[in-house]
Parts: sequence; structure tokens; C-alpha cells
Amino acid sequence: MALVVQKYGGTSMGTIERIRNVARRVAKTFDAGNDMVVVVSAMSGETNKLVALANDMCEFPDSREYDVLVAAGEQVSVALLSMCLKSMGYKAKSYHGWQVPIITDNSFSKARIEEIPDTKIRADLKEGTIIVVAGFQGVDREGNITTLGRGGSDTSAVAMAAALKADVCEIYTDVDGVYTTDPNICSDAHKIEKISYDEMLELASLGAKVLQIRSVEFAKKYDVDIHVRSSFNDNTGTMVTKEDEEMEAVLVSGIAYDKNEAKIAVMRVPDKPGIAAKILSPLSDANISVDMILQNVSEEGFTDFTFTVTKADFKKALAITKETAKEVEAKEVLTDENISKISIVGVGMRSHAGVATKMFQVLAKENINIQMISTSEIKISVVIDGKYTELAVRVLHDAFGLSGK
Amino acid sequence: MALVVQKYGGTSMGTIERIRNVARRVAKTFDAGNDMVVVVSAMSGETNKLVALANDMCEFPDSREYDVLVAAGEQVSVALLSMCLKSMGYKAKSYHGWQVPIITDNSFSKARIEEIPDTKIRADLKEGTIIVVAGFQGVDREGNITTLGRGGSDTSAVAMAAALKADVCEIYTDVDGVYTTDPNICSDAHKIEKISYDEMLELASLGAKVLQIRSVEFAKKYDVDIHVRSSFNDNTGTMVTKEDEEMEAVLVSGIAYDKNEAKIAVMRVPDKPGIAAKILSPLSDANISVDMILQNVSEEGFTDFTFTVTKADFKKALAITKETAKEVEAKEVLTDENISKISIVGVGMRSHAGVATKMFQVLAKENINIQMISTSEIKISVVIDGKYTELAVRVLHDAFGLSGK
Repeated sequence: MALVVQKYGGTSMGTIERIRNVARRVAKTFDAGNDMVVVVSAMSGETNKLVALANDMCEFPDSREYDVLVAAGEQVSVALLSMCLKSMGYKAKSYHGWQVPIITDNSFSKARIEEIPDTKIRADLKEGTIIVVAGFQGVDREGNITTLGRGGSDTSAVAMAAALKADVCEIYTDVDGVYTTDPNICSDAHKIEKISYDEMLELASLGAKVLQIRSVEFAKKYDVDIHVRSSFNDNTGTMVTKEDEEMEAVLVSGIAYDKNEAKIAVMRVPDKPGIAAKILSPLSDANISVDMILQNVSEEGFTDFTFTVTKADFKKALAITKETAKEVEAKEVLTDENISKISIVGVGMRSHAGVATKMFQVLAKENINIQMISTSEIKISVVIDGKYTELAVRVLHDAFGLSGK
Repeated sequence: MALVVQKYGGTSMGTIERIRNVARRVAKTFDAGNDMVVVVSAMSGETNKLVALANDMCEFPDSREYDVLVAAGEQVSVALLSMCLKSMGYKAKSYHGWQVPIITDNSFSKARIEEIPDTKIRADLKEGTIIVVAGFQGVDREGNITTLGRGGSDTSAVAMAAALKADVCEIYTDVDGVYTTDPNICSDAHKIEKISYDEMLELASLGAKVLQIRSVEFAKKYDVDIHVRSSFNDNTGTMVTKEDEEMEAVLVSGIAYDKNEAKIAVMRVPDKPGIAAKILSPLSDANISVDMILQNVSEEGFTDFTFTVTKADFKKALAITKETAKEVEAKEVLTDENISKISIVGVGMRSHAGVATKMFQVLAKENINIQMISTSEIKISVVIDGKYTELAVRVLHDAFGLSGK
């Protein structure tokens, strides 16, 4: 007998009929002799409705009350799934975050899970009860309701699996698993069977929206195997797990792209110490995250300073940067909103030289100009002209042997 | 400085704009130097939506999970009101039932409040925080969410007022207060300034749907003054309070009618001991409440046995009674769905004879036949032909000096 944690997202819980489908899946796993903890999201669209209410009410909703509000969606879905399971003859019980309790810090809307005492859950599991837990929400040590941020139910599930030392954590979603790249732009893309935490982290933060980044960090820290799979069929999905030798043999596991950034370049800045800090501090003060940064080699005492931000932050970032540019006596500020970031990810890069070179050669062969480059141990990202996105993804997918597997 | 508890119902909280209106009212009372506890219902329609979800999910929703589900509506409204107050510059904090905590027994969907520890609320009040409490919901001693039944927010408010020894408990609704009778059928009806708990209980159970019955019982038990008033104007409403001499001077305080009952008569039953129990037991076994009961004087060893039930229970009650009638060898079962119950209520009756006689004379003068009579210390109810309802209410309203005050 194993302990299985399953998580179902908003799409899987979207209607009464879909919740019945989830109940049937849960029952099947339970009937096979497993203890079951099920973590669910709000019915799709519900959280957006609650957010809209908050925004209608005031421009800057209070963060504590915002969390109270948006946590209501999961309250509905746990109750519905539990009553469905009970009507099917199973023992089932809904748990809110505070009832488990899932104890978090008090950073509203982006709370971090600190502790999950398991006494109550263990007692219920022992009696053969299927536990249905509200994802996305927790409670701080003062008894305030907190939420974990968008996609937080993934983290709830992984945290429950860690706390209960579950045998497996299955994340059900509306896709079959994690793919080598977006199947919509590359018909050769295929499902990855096994991927390491670190690779998944790079892919998640690069735009493959299958798992919340924090849930992967959590899984890595507590050594929880995540099985990402579809709630609409019985196919095996992708296992996100500890790195092994097999994975290292693969040079590149996946290719991600991100069209959601824009570039700002401060031209001909007098090159003095501290110039990067001077340009970037006002941005971080305004809570704007800068992604890639490039500073050219100094020429005649001047340098060009280029960085990217998300398109959502672009206007605000540009206004701030123009102010700074005046102060530091830069010549001008140039921008480009039609860029794309292409990344190749793989733990195999660590032990293999020449991956970056190959990437650049492949792109050069297609006459795709590289504007910026950034690397980590297991990732190489380049910024290119947005119009080459699909082409770049396809040729790289091919060049690194991901097609036709 | 006083401690004021205010309660706003679903209609008052029905839209974002109306919640803003509630916030302005709350702020006004706070600015006048009062400590404030505000109890709110779900936005109108929300609870019905949740109930519909439960009924779509299964025929007999589990009672624990049903309460988890329907308590979600208040979670939304406390958050919205609190964020509105905060955006106006006030300190405010939402509380769910479990956060207060409002401790109840574990009778789901009709839980009774047992205890309200006030430490947390007191501490927040001391810091000048406006407390916004979710009505209708509580938590049992095992940490399960419970609800108090329809209209339960009234009881939440009165219970909070009792626990905190508040100076006044204001129940805001969409009418101006408690009226001598329904203004829709008697244009002379006027607002009652002060009414005793017992009178209010009789009027509440007779169909004046201003306050949940249990909230009045609670107020009586703990001596809480309830001010029933409108959230759409500043008029003084009706004070529901302890009986005083002034009230006793008034013979009749109000007149209620109820068209929602039907009559069932079992004719020519052999008159043996235990016949009433024999007819009524199968009904109570089927969870049907019988209101008025009449057994005629025995004639030649036979009697007629008549009773009323709500129209909702009528079909079921009739089927059961027909079975019983066969068993006890009654002649036949007659029914009448076009009846109306008219009641006059007043603590003054206790010390004044002749009130019933006067009532019967007034009705006789209009040729209204009385089919059944039932009395309590402070109430006389009669069943008449439904078509005379409005006429009966008007002439009684007039005869007992309630018109033209």
C-alpha cells in the first residue's frame, strides 16, 4: 500500500461533470489499495472572478484581505469534490489550509510554506478517509489566511507529499506532460519521460507553464518525485526527479522561448565605476525585475548598457530609465519590443563542451543574429529578433537531436 | 464611547457599490467615537448559487461538506468590506467564524452557538480596528466549519453583541423596521418603535421575515437590545427589547398573516383514546411539522380531527394521512388549500380580558367564518378562508387601534 498525493488544477475541476471525473480517478487509485491525499485548485475562472471583485472594489486592495478573498475559490472546490466522493460511498473529508494546517510565513499572496503538522491527516488516513486539501492557501502563525501565488496548488501538493513522505506526487493538468519544446510551433516535439529538478526549474522559469517554479524547488529540497500528467487520459506523463546518469548523457533536454520581454539600451554612457548600479537601482526600487543584462566593452570612456524586462513592466521601466539616462549623461535610450529569448536546457551541458558554439553556429547558418547571450551551468539563452522565434526553435530542436525520437 | 455591533444582510451587501455604502455607514458610526464590530452576510444571490452547485453535484449532499461550501459566500463579503474600509484609511480586519472563534455544536446547517471567546477581538478593538465578522458560520470544537441556518447572520450578530456586552446591536435590512402589519395590504400600517422579545418571536414565526427566530431567542436570553433598521436611509427603526410597562399598556402590537398553510381534516373517526397520536405520529416520523390542531367534541362515539401543515408538506402529509385514515376506519379525509392564518400579538393581552372576544366579533361583523382557533399567552391565531385575508387584517388593524397612530 502506497501513499499517493494527487493534484488537480482548475481546468480539471472546471465543471460539476469534470469534478465527477476527478472523483472517479481518485476512487480508482484508492480502490487499488492506496492511501490518498488530493489537492485541488479553484474551478477554472473562479479565482479570476474574485480578483476582478477586488479590483472593482479598490485600486490597491489590502494584501491580507486580498488573500482572504481569493482563497474562497478553493473552499468551493474541496467541498464539491468531497461530497461527490461521499455520494459514491467513499469516506472523504475536505481540509482548508488552516485545518491541515499548512503553516506559512505572513507574506500575503506569495507566502512560503514553513511547516505541515501531519497528526490530523494521518489519523484520518488511518481510518481510510480520502483527504481533499484546498491548494494555493495556508495560514500564518497568527491565524491569518495566506495564499501561495498563482499556480500555488502545485506547491501545496508537493509540500503535502514531502510532509507525509508520500510515495509519489501526481500533478494532473491539461497537457500530457513536459515537452521538448512547444508542440504548437514544432510538430516534432515529444514528451520528456524523465527530467531533473534543475532542468525543470530552467524550463519553468523560461515559459513552460506546466509547474509553478516554487513547487519544483520544494520537490528538489525534499526529494519528492513529481509525475506531471493529464487528467483527461491515462497516459504516463513526465517524471520530474533527481538527476541521474542517464540524464547527463543527454546534451539538451528541452528548448524554451519567451516572447514576453522587451529590450532597453542606454547608449554611450560615460564608463565610470558604479554605472550599472546607478541604472538598475531605480528599477528594483520600483519593483521591476531585470532579466538579461549586457554591458559592452568600454570604448573611449563610453559604454552601452542593455537589459531586458517583461513587456508588462516595459513602459514603467522605460520612463525610469530615461530619467536615469539624463542624470548619467548618456547619449540616448533605444528600445526594442520585438525580441524573443530562446533557451536550450540540459544537465548534459555541464560535462560537454561546445554546446554554446553549436547553438550559435546553428543560428548563424539561418542568418539569425544574436543580440544578447546569457548562460548558466545547464542553460544557454540568446535574445534574437522576434520574427525568427519559430525558426530558431525548430532548427535547434533538430540540431540537438530532439526531433524524430 | 460605546461598542456597537452592526449587521448587514445580503441585499445591503449585494454589489460593490452597496458594499461601499455599508463601509461609509460603518465609518460614520466609528468616527462618532464608537468601537465597531460588523457582521455581514454573503452578497445576495451568492448563497443560492452555492446551494445550486451542491444540488447539481448530488441528490443528498453530505452535511459537513455542504456547510463548507455555503460558508464560502461570507468569506468573499468580509474580505471586500474590509479592503474597502482600509482603502478609506481605516484599520479593519476580517474574521471568519473559526478565526473569532464562534464555537458551535456540530449540528451542520443548523448549528447552535455555544461560546465566543473574545480575547482576539478585544485586542483588535483596543487598537482601533474595525472588526468585520462573517455571519452565518461558526466552527465546532473539532475544527469543522458549521453554519447556523438561513438568516443565521442575525444570530451571529446578536451572539457577538452578547459575548462582547455591546451597547447596541443594529440589524440593517431592506425595510425600515418591524411594522404593525404588512404595509402592502394595509396602508395604515406603521413602524413599531419598541417591541418585546416575546412579541417579536410570535411575529417572526408568523411570517414577518425581518429577523431569524433564533436571533431573538438569543437576544432575550442574553438581554441584547436589537435595533432593526434600514441600510438605505437614516431613519430610526424598531427596538426589540425587554418588556416594559409601556408595552403592556398596548393590547395588540401587531397583526400577522400566513397564507402558506393547508388544512387536512379526518372526518368521523371512531373516538378512542390515543387517536390524535395515531394520526400525528406518522407525520412527525416523516419530519412534517403540524401547526394548528383541532379535535371536535365527540358525537355518537365519532369525532372530526383537523390540522394544518405548510403547503410544501401538504402532498406528502395528505398521502400519509389517507393511509392512517383507512387504518383507524375514518369516514373520509377532506382538505382545504385556500386557507389563511391571521394572528394578533401583544403582551397586553396577558392582563386584559376580552381580546379574543373582540377579535371574533370584528371578524363576524364582516361575515368571516372562523375555522380554527389557537392561542398562547400573547397571541391569538385563527384560520379563515384565504380570500378574506386582506380584509381581516385591515379590520383587525383598525379595531385594535393600530391605524392612524
